[in-house]
Order: sequence, then structure tokens, then C-alpha cells
Amino acid sequence: MRTALVIGTGLVGTSAALALAGRGVVVHLADHDPEQARTAAALGAGTDEAPDGHVDLAIVAAPPAHVAGVLADAMRRGVARGYLDVASVKGGPRRELEALGLDLSSYIGTHPMSGREKSGPLAATGDLFEGRPWVLTPTRDTDTEVLNLALELVSHCRAVPVVMDADAHDRAVALVSHMPHLVSSMVAARLENAEEAAVRLCGQGIRDVTRIAASDPGMWIDILSANPGPVADLLADVSADLDETVRALRALQSSDEAKRHEGTAGIEDVLRRGNAGQVRVPGKHGSAPRVYEVVAVLIDDHPGQLARIFADAGRAGVNIEDVRIEHATGQQAGLVQLMVEPQAAPVLTAALRERGWAIRQ
Amino acid sequence: MRTALVIGTGLVGTSAALALAGRGVVVHLADHDPEQARTAAALGAGTDEAPDGHVDLAIVAAPPAHVAGVLADAMRRGVARGYLDVASVKGGPRRELEALGLDLSSYIGTHPMSGREKSGPLAATGDLFEGRPWVLTPTRDTDTEVLNLALELVSHCRAVPVVMDADAHDRAVALVSHMPHLVSSMVAARLENAEEAAVRLCGQGIRDVTRIAASDPGMWIDILSANPGPVADLLADVSADLDETVRALRALQSSDEAKRHEGTAGIEDVLRRGNAGQVRVPGKHGSAPRVYEVVAVLIDDHPGQLARIFADAGRAGVNIEDVRIEHATGQQAGLVQLMVEPQAAPVLTAALRERGWAIRQ
Repeated sequence: MRTALVIGTGLVGTSAALALAGRGVVVHLADHDPEQARTAAALGAGTDEAPDGHVDLAIVAAPPAHVAGVLADAMRRGVARGYLDVASVKGGPRRELEALGLDLSSYIGTHPMSGREKSGPLAATGDLFEGRPWVLTPTRDTDTEVLNLALELVSHCRAVPVVMDADAHDRAVALVSHMPHLVSSMVAARLENAEEAAVRLCGQGIRDVTRIAASDPGMWIDILSANPGPVADLLADVSADLDETVRALRALQSSDEAKRHEGTAGIEDVLRRGNAGQVRVPGKHGSAPRVYEVVAVLIDDHPGQLARIFADAGRAGVNIEDVRIEHATGQQAGLVQLMVEPQAAPVLTAALRERGWAIRQ
Repeated sequence: MRTALVIGTGLVGTSAALALAGRGVVVHLADHDPEQARTAAALGAGTDEAPDGHVDLAIVAAPPAHVAGVLADAMRRGVARGYLDVASVKGGPRRELEALGLDLSSYIGTHPMSGREKSGPLAATGDLFEGRPWVLTPTRDTDTEVLNLALELVSHCRAVPVVMDADAHDRAVALVSHMPHLVSSMVAARLENAEEAAVRLCGQGIRDVTRIAASDPGMWIDILSANPGPVADLLADVSADLDETVRALRALQSSDEAKRHEGTAGIEDVLRRGNAGQVRVPGKHGSAPRVYEVVAVLIDDHPGQLARIFADAGRAGVNIEDVRIEHATGQQAGLVQLMVEPQAAPVLTAALRERGWAIRQ
């Protein structure tokens, strides 16, 4: 790939442009708002001048609702050898393009699984996609040349290509992202009018479950509107589980021992299925979940404490895999949970103890 | 308080005993398994010899299902001036004691909101309750002297006393702990039979939502069995929200624009209520959630990288409030998100840049 045209210079388009420009690809930038394209160009993402002739790859990074229209326009003008989009849903845009009667051999739908809270070209960065899955949805009709252009883009962005069917992709993101998001909102919604005394009892569990409920509703309405079917199907499954669990809990209140036994079995079933599903969530390294040992260190909340812990860990040759800082309610003192490979835990514990840290058993 | 009797020397009982013994209180330890009491005594939690005469405070730390029986026995024997339990539900045990016709002026139900994954006396630690809420449920009939004994225990354990009505407590823990736990299990359960390609797309969102679904089913069956009513009520509320949301998503698939508009409004409603609830979850300092700025630093996965970052932050006088390490799928490189007070973010960014770190904008 020597030349590319990025249409839509928001966060994703500009980040891809930065990555390509950094690898020596000549990138042309276009946006329905020329000011945005100028900003992206000023950031070093390419030039906002139109290409002279057609480019190797046109990358459409418009919002989901506009993707098919922008793609169709570019394809009719024949601006490139290959075309791709980066929208967060893949089935709908493809069907729209088909309905428009376009030859789709030069098109491939893709979805980089990155995403940040911020948006716009100023939030862009050439390493936005580094190490993240980038879904590609070729069909039997996709030109191999176009698939290879897409793979080259993914490689330049240092992302990890994952090939999937378009509809399977939409069901997958419903499962791992859209459904959990709505469920998190529903748990959080229960707190809206809760008594202050109850809210004070919140711990790390509910904090984690509701973290993503803080996201911007506008952005999520766009995402969910583009994928309502698969999300509704999954929520209906959750709803069936919920109703079953409510029945089990009511049975636990029965005076009949056989009913109570049924209730216990129902609760156990959902908890065990939860165990079985949770264990499949990839750890931060993307492979099978790694099991870490926790070394818990008591600290007070002054600058330098964490630095000293990490420095002491480093001196002991131990790599900290993950960290959780748990502060006590209304207190400055807290607990740092250091996640390390199991064989490193005793080494770290001994090293930190020797340097005077209070380690919780 | 000069003397105490801890009945039930598991994790909670032994931890409380360690805290009391550390403050000079003479602690007697009892357990239906004398070996457990001996272990606790060997750890320095007190003596497993029976008290000579009655003690100031009897602390019953038996499993929820046995609490009322153990309390009733101790009260009938008149072993102490005041009695309390530490079970995770409060309404049921009180009603059981009432049904037994006991004078409850010398009893107060309590619940320390600590908890660890481990159990038994060997997991105990005198700082288990430090900074954690410890719920006290006095009634109009509770002797002030008994309330003060409980407050003294909480103070010795350096926990934060929170006074609540027993049934309000049970509804509160259903809200902030039991309901979210089951919902997390139900989200995780959807992954049990999901395709591997879909599971590969999991990111930090679903990882957080499903974290607590990894817990031990046996322990959670005990907890949920003791509080089925309030949990079922809350799950029924979530179920109503879910059904409403499924309807809204289906409406988004309609060809009728008015229906689609209704669907959007329905989705927006649940997302906004989620925002409103999430913002109430106390931050790690227990007060109103503090808003931190994120400074994101690219690292590779070798020992010493984090130590260097923390050391550099310490040198810049910046206190890291929280850390999240995000590793790229299948890659060793990762991103460290440092949460700092907003005014500290530019200071930290500049300091880390100067020392050669790659900071993501």
C-alpha cells in the first residue's frame, strides 16, 4: 500500500491515518467538515488535498448510520482499488450496500476493537489499535487483493487481525460489549434512588459491575441502534435466567423443604454457569486467563509509597502483572493488591517483608 | 471492655479476636471444633480456656443458619454483659431470637463489611476490618451499655460504625452486594457456550462486569439463602427494566419512525438512569466519587518498568490514586493508566515525558 484516502477524520480515522503516515504511506484526508480534515492534517496524519487519481485503499470512518452512503459514493466515484469501513456493526452496512446494487468484491467490512472515552481528531494517536483485535469480515466475493490491503492496514496499526462473518461479528459484540453495557446500566439504575446509608455500603464488587454504566448515553444509543436484534436476543436470555432466579429465591422462602431444596439447586445452577462463563474471559494477555497470586500490602496514602513498593518488587526481579488499590472507606490508609505469577508470590512477599512492608496473609 | 468471648473462630471471629487482643482485651476463644479455637489461640488471638465468670462482650461469629441458636445458648448461660453477632443478614436472626422469647436488651446485631476470598482462622488478620463499614442494628430496646460495647469493638477493629435498622441492612446488602453478584453471574453465564472467536473480543468492560462471578458458589448459596426476599425483589425490578429494554430494542427494528423514536427514548432512559446510579457509588475513599484524570503510559512487559514509572511519579511529587494495567491481546506491550488528581495530570505528563516515557494523549 502506497496511498490511502481516509474519509471521516474523527478519532478512529485520524488514528489509522497517523499509523499509515508513520509507515510512509501517502495519506489523503477528507471529512464532511473540512476543518476536521485540516486538523488531522496539522497533526501529521496526511494531507487534506484530494488525491491525484485513485488511491490503493479508501478507509471510511463515518458514523454507523452514514457508512453505507459514504462508501457507495466513494465506490461510484472509483476513488480506490479497495474499500473498507471501520463501523462497530457489520451486517447492516453490508446489506445496505447490497441493496444499492454495488459490486462488493472491492469492499471489506472491518471493526477495530479499540475505543476511548474521547472523540475527534485531537484524541487520535497512531498507537490506538496496538495489540487490539481488528475484526475483518471478508466474504467469498471479496478480492484477495482487497483482503490483503486490509491486512496491511491492520499490520501498520499493529493490531491483531481476526476474521469473522459479518453477522457473527455483530452477535459477538452484542455478547461481549453491548449486552453487558446495558446490564451494567440496569444494576447501576437501582442505586439512583437508594438510601444514602445503603449506598455507603458499596464495595469493590458493585464498583466493578457498574463502572461502564458511566459512559456517554449519546454514543451508546448510536451503537445499540445499529445492533438492536442481537442485543435484544441476549437480553431476553438474561431475562429468562433472572425470572428463573427470582423463582428460586422465592422457593427458598417456602416452608416446604423440597421446595427450598429446589430453590437452592436453582441458585447453584446460575452461580456455576457464571463460574464457567467467567473463566473464559481472556486475561489481559488475550490468551487463556492466567491465574495470579495476590500479594496484599498495607500503605498509607502519601506520594512515593507505591513507587517504593514497585521499586522493591523490581529489585527482587518480580514482575507485577496487575495492581488493585483498595482504599478503606473514609480513611487514608489502603491496601495495594499486587498480582504476580504464582511462583513469584513468595519471593515478593519475602522481599517486601524484609524491607519493612506490612503484608496481609 | 476488658474481657470478651469469641464464639466461632473462623476468619471473622479470629480477626476480631486478634484486634481485641492487640488492644489489651482478654479474649476467650470457643468453637464447636476445639481444634479451630486452639489454632486461633496459637495465632495470638486469645486463650481457648473458658472464662472464669462472665465476660464483658460475647461475639458470636457462627454461620448465618446457626447464629440464633448459638446466641440463645450463650444468653441462657449468661456468659456476658452484652451479646452481638456478625452474620451477613440481620433480620432473620433477630426474629428467631424473638421467637425463642429471649430478652434482647443485651443483644445487638452487627455486620462488618469486610470479607475475603479465604476463610478459617489462618486467614485472619487484626486489620481485616480497618476502614470498612461495620453495620450496627440497635433497636429501641437495646441497652446503651451494649451499644457502647459494640462501638468499642468496632473502634478496636478500626472499622467505621454505621447504624441501620436490621431489615434496612438486609435490603442494603441485597442492593449493593447480593443482587449485583447474581447479575454478574448471569452475564458471565452467557459466555459459557459462546464461540471462541466471540470470546476473543472481550475487553475491559465485560472483564469488570463479570469479575465477581468467579466466586465460590457454596459460600454464595449460604449468603443468598439467608436473604432471599430482598434479593428477589431487586432482581424483579431488574427484570422489569430488562423487559422494557428488550421492547425498546425491538422497536428500534421497526419500519415505523414513531416506534423507532420510542425505542430510542427507552434506551436513553435506562442509560441515563444508569449514569445517575453509577455516580452515587462511593469512590475508594468512601466519600463522593472523586474524579481523576488518566495519564496513560505505554510500557513493555518487563520487570522494573512500573517501578520506574512510579519512582518518576514520586520524584515529581505526584500521588498515584489508582492504576489500571491494560495489556494488548496476545502482545507483551501494554498501557498503564495512572489515575491522578486533575491538577496533577499535566505535572505527571510533563515529568514522565521528560524521562522518555511514551504518553498517550
